[in-house]
Amino acid sequence: MSLIYEGKAKRVYETDNPDQVRVEFKDSATAFNGQKKAEIPGKGIVNAAVTTRLYGWLQDHGIATHFIEQLDDRNLLVDKLTMVQLEVVVRNWVAGSLHQRTGIPEGTTMDEPIIEFYYKNDDLGDPLLNEDHIRLLGAASPDLVARLRQEALRINQVLKPFFLQRGIVLVDFKLEFGWDAMGELKLGDEISPDTCRLWDQSSGERLDKDRFRRDLGRVEEAYQEILKRVMS
Amino acid sequence: MSLIYEGKAKRVYETDNPDQVRVEFKDSATAFNGQKKAEIPGKGIVNAAVTTRLYGWLQDHGIATHFIEQLDDRNLLVDKLTMVQLEVVVRNWVAGSLHQRTGIPEGTTMDEPIIEFYYKNDDLGDPLLNEDHIRLLGAASPDLVARLRQEALRINQVLKPFFLQRGIVLVDFKLEFGWDAMGELKLGDEISPDTCRLWDQSSGERLDKDRFRRDLGRVEEAYQEILKRVMS
Repeated sequence: MSLIYEGKAKRVYETDNPDQVRVEFKDSATAFNGQKKAEIPGKGIVNAAVTTRLYGWLQDHGIATHFIEQLDDRNLLVDKLTMVQLEVVVRNWVAGSLHQRTGIPEGTTMDEPIIEFYYKNDDLGDPLLNEDHIRLLGAASPDLVARLRQEALRINQVLKPFFLQRGIVLVDFKLEFGWDAMGELKLGDEISPDTCRLWDQSSGERLDKDRFRRDLGRVEEAYQEILKRVMS
Repeated sequence: MSLIYEGKAKRVYETDNPDQVRVEFKDSATAFNGQKKAEIPGKGIVNAAVTTRLYGWLQDHGIATHFIEQLDDRNLLVDKLTMVQLEVVVRNWVAGSLHQRTGIPEGTTMDEPIIEFYYKNDDLGDPLLNEDHIRLLGAASPDLVARLRQEALRINQVLKPFFLQRGIVLVDFKLEFGWDAMGELKLGDEISPDTCRLWDQSSGERLDKDRFRRDLGRVEEAYQEILKRVMS
């Protein structure tokens, strides 16, 4: 079936059902808005498996997601969504751009999670938006912003203990949402070491895409370690 | 009396009264977080006079400000304030970083003003904050954020027609607030062509610091034109 869309880390294909698409997970990795590129062997397989496990877990806990089934080691069948043009980021510990923005040291824990909205727009470098900007762009109504925030916090409440039971601190992660053919708002995209910061609970070792972004080495090993723990 | 603080465009001195300070307006101009520097002859005189006129006008319209009196052509006597560590930006038309952030063309008008909060921190480059960041930094309580927003919108409602009667479009402007010795929240700092975007209503010509930032020439003339119109 024909290719609908090719992104940095995934390809999306039509299926026989106009309301469903197939998502293929690639080994390609990019960072800094596409300026840094590489192949991470096996990454696509890890991310497909981790997303399958996490979206199943979320659905078991009452979160609506686009996930239907895993077709093979790189391919998922999912609901076709009309995406909200926002990335929703949840942060439990200070890291990355939150450190740069606030000057608060990386690894500082927070009493309450921080929610951030970014404009999904590669040409503009996915900039941070406040709620006035979101209204100006028509990217989401105030009601939808409130709902996205609430849903992101619920997902965080489900995922934090899932990871912690496996010795992993869920530092922060990015979510994307959209509407299915019935008009239901669902979690789309993926949740994987590409879209989360995941730190080993005892050593603090980074087990996520920061190993690639920051040239920390042992990138493949980190993805395999997450796969092993998430599947356990 | 001794110097308390020297900023990019102003010096602040003690006075005989511990609750009051003298603010001296310099001709120095900086842009891009201090990377670009120049002297604009007469700028300090223009900004002292424009701030005097606008803060008087605001006080006549029920806005609490730190302004007490103009001492001479470069010096104002003001209440000493403990500053909120936020810059509050009000935008009526798209320009500058709002254009870069959203991709919306410069000069696009907006149905409702946009409010932005920036962290007053030169080392971090005065980054944009959302309300979660403000809470994390302890820069302002949610109540204070709501009050700053409301006060900024009231100031906009008073200043927009003031400028428009003088053939000037108030595109956007930056405000700073603080508490006086009695614990009253007041508008501090200055309002001038350094802190506003001001466009000629008929020609669209920029009559503000963008002439310096963007090397548009005729910088002194623009400041003098604003002085002439504001004093009329």
